[in-house]
This record gives sequence, structure tokens and C-alpha cells, in this order.
Amino acid sequence: MARVKWLAAPSSPAWLEQAIAQPELLLIDHAHCERKAAGVALQLMFRYPSEVGLAAALSPLAREELEHFEQVLQLLQRRGASLRSLPAPAYGSALTAQVRKGEPQRMLDSFLVAGLIEARSHERMALLAAHSPDAELRELYGELLASEARHFGLYWLLCEERFGRGATVERLQELAAAEVAALTGDLAAADQVRMHSVGIDLVS
Amino acid sequence: MARVKWLAAPSSPAWLEQAIAQPELLLIDHAHCERKAAGVALQLMFRYPSEVGLAAALSPLAREELEHFEQVLQLLQRRGASLRSLPAPAYGSALTAQVRKGEPQRMLDSFLVAGLIEARSHERMALLAAHSPDAELRELYGELLASEARHFGLYWLLCEERFGRGATVERLQELAAAEVAALTGDLAAADQVRMHSVGIDLVS
Ligand SMILES: [Fe+2]
Ligand SMILES: [Fe+2]
Ligand SMILES: [Fe+2]
Ligand SMILES: [Fe+2]
Repeated sequence: MARVKWLAAPSSPAWLEQAIAQPELLLIDHAHCERKAAGVALQLMFRYPSEVGLAAALSPLAREELEHFEQVLQLLQRRGASLRSLPAPAYGSALTAQVRKGEPQRMLDSFLVAGLIEARSHERMALLAAHSPDAELRELYGELLASEARHFGLYWLLCEERFGRGATVERLQELAAAEVAALTGDLAAADQVRMHSVGIDLVS
Repeated sequence: MARVKWLAAPSSPAWLEQAIAQPELLLIDHAHCERKAAGVALQLMFRYPSEVGLAAALSPLAREELEHFEQVLQLLQRRGASLRSLPAPAYGSALTAQVRKGEPQRMLDSFLVAGLIEARSHERMALLAAHSPDAELRELYGELLASEARHFGLYWLLCEERFGRGATVERLQELAAAEVAALTGDLAAADQVRMHSVGIDLVS
């Protein structure tokens, strides 16, 4: 299984099984994820308006996430489903809590957290692209997952340019451990499965 | 001069003169306007996640604003200028203050305020497209202004579908008067000129 090498642990077969059993729920959550990914990129552009090269990198990323959002939305509509609010899993806030308050640490951490979320999306979409019994969903996830790996690479590059390789790797390893911790534990109830719900087996 | 008919008064020649005298400053502010327009569309999608048809309308609009942002950014870079934070004029907050707190009024007002900002952008870009002495700027503004008129139309339609024509027209007239009030008064200092800085003559 192709996987961004920086993820500290893979998702469990149990998560995949749950996700495959709830395709519509997962699509709705996925739509929200794409929209949020665009929101994060825009938020970073707003937070650092004069940071050289940042907007030129993040604006096309935000546009691409919105294209993904629209693709998922259209598939939902073709299937007679519609977007509705869903309680988000604790994942996002658990990762945001890892972002240090002072600059420039806040910038480094924000980029790396955004990148790790992209990496996990990539990994889980790859699982769905390979194992979903629904051909249309396999195709959709297969189309989208390459972008998410590229997005991880873009956030990585933004860090490396500004903080150097050593500092980037060091902090990424810490945050990747926190990312795995946020996904480790008992599976949620079936109707709580999400693109980023718990689903990593405890490493013994 | 083509102008969205809902603006309650035109910009003054004095604003145009000031804007033409500060092309780079205006471009930087314009870049921020495009980014903010994308931000507003995304914010509305987030605020009303299950409102039928809203995300499908606003996501492409947000993407288009980001494309405009990138176009302006590239022009700035070609000219050796770079994005920097600028103090925003009071316009945005003056209009936001008009948005009523309770729903569904908040939705109606938010759409109309976003639409009026688009309409004013359209009007001022049309002035610059016609009168800027800089051919490259005339071309840029000429390219972008048609979208802004379309964006006004889109917000208008979102209102009409949900609130009916009568209620939409009535509230738009009130807000259009507030929009003009926010731009009426003494011109700012030359280095404070913005796409939405004061520049409407007092109607006697
Ligand atoms: Fe995406
Ligand atoms: Fe992404
Ligand atoms: Fe625009
Ligand atoms: Fe616009």
C-alpha cells in the first residue's frame, strides 16, 4: 500500500471495514473535509498575508480542495443524498491543540498539522480506492488521493524552505506521533465513522 | 458607464483620480479584496452547511475569487512589488454592522452585503478599466469586472430564491443606502486610497 512515509502508523482494517459499510456517511464527511482543507489554506493565507511565496502556494491548493468538494457534492446529489452537518471527530481539535502559540513555532506546527491531515486523508482514500466494493467510489477516491499526497508535499516544502530540513523532520516526528495517538483507541459507533475517526491499532 | 443598477450612488471622479495615482497600492489592496471575497463565500458555506444549493453556488465563486487573487498577485510580482498587510478601510466593518443578528434575516443581509461589495468592486474596476493610463491595468480590470457583476447576480439570486423578490428588493434598497453612506465623506489621504475607500460625493 502506497503511503506517505511520514505517517507513524497505518489505519486498521477495522476502520476500513466500518468506512466501507457506511459509504454515504463517509462521503458527506469527506465533503466537509475537502471544504475544511480549503478553509485551512485560506486561514493560513490570512494569518500570514505578507509571507513571501505563501499565498502563491496556498491559493491554488485551496482552489483544488474546493474542486474536490464540488466533485463529492455532485456525487452525493446524483445519489439523492445531501450535505448535512455532522459532529466532527476529536481528531481536528486534538491536532490543533498541538500547535504551539508563539511564532515562528506556530507557523511550523500549523503547516505540519495541515500536512499530516492531508497525509492521513491520502492513506485512507488509498484504502477505499483499493477496497471499496463500489466502483464509482473506487474511482472517485483513486482520482482524489494523488492530490492529497501532493498537498502533504507542499506543506512539507513550505516548512523546509523556512525552517530547514532538520527542524522540520524533528517536529514532524513529534506531531506524527500525536496524530497517531489521536486515532488510536476503540472504534466509534458505526454511525460515527468519519474520514478521520479513530482507527489505528494499539502498537504492542 | 455600465453599473450594477442597485448601487445607490456612483463613485466620485476624485476617488478615481486618487486610485489612478497609486496603482501599486491599489493592486495590493485589490489582491486582499479578492482573497477576502473568497473568504466570505467560504465562511457562508461553513455557516450554513446544509442549506440546499448554497455550497454548489458559492464554492465555484470562491474558486474564481482565488483565481483573481492569483492573477493580481502575479502582476504584482512581475512589477517587483509584493503583498503586504494594509490597514483596511472602514467600509467592510460598516457594512457588517448592518447585518441583523437573528435568522433568517442574518442570511438575507449577509448575502446582500456580499453582493453590494461585489457590485461596488465592479463599478470601480469599470472606472479603472476605462480610465487608467496603464494599458496592462486597463486589461486586468476589464477582464475581472465581468465576474464581479456576475457575483452580484449570484448573491441576488440566492436571496430571491429564499426570500422572494419583494423582500429582497426592499432590504437591498436599505443596505444600498448604507453602502453609499459608508463611502460618503472626505477622501482619505492619498496613501489610504483603497478599492473600497471613501469616494462618493455628498448628494445635495
Ligand atoms: Fe482534497
Ligand atoms: Fe488536500
Ligand atoms: Fe473577484
Ligand atoms: Fe467577486
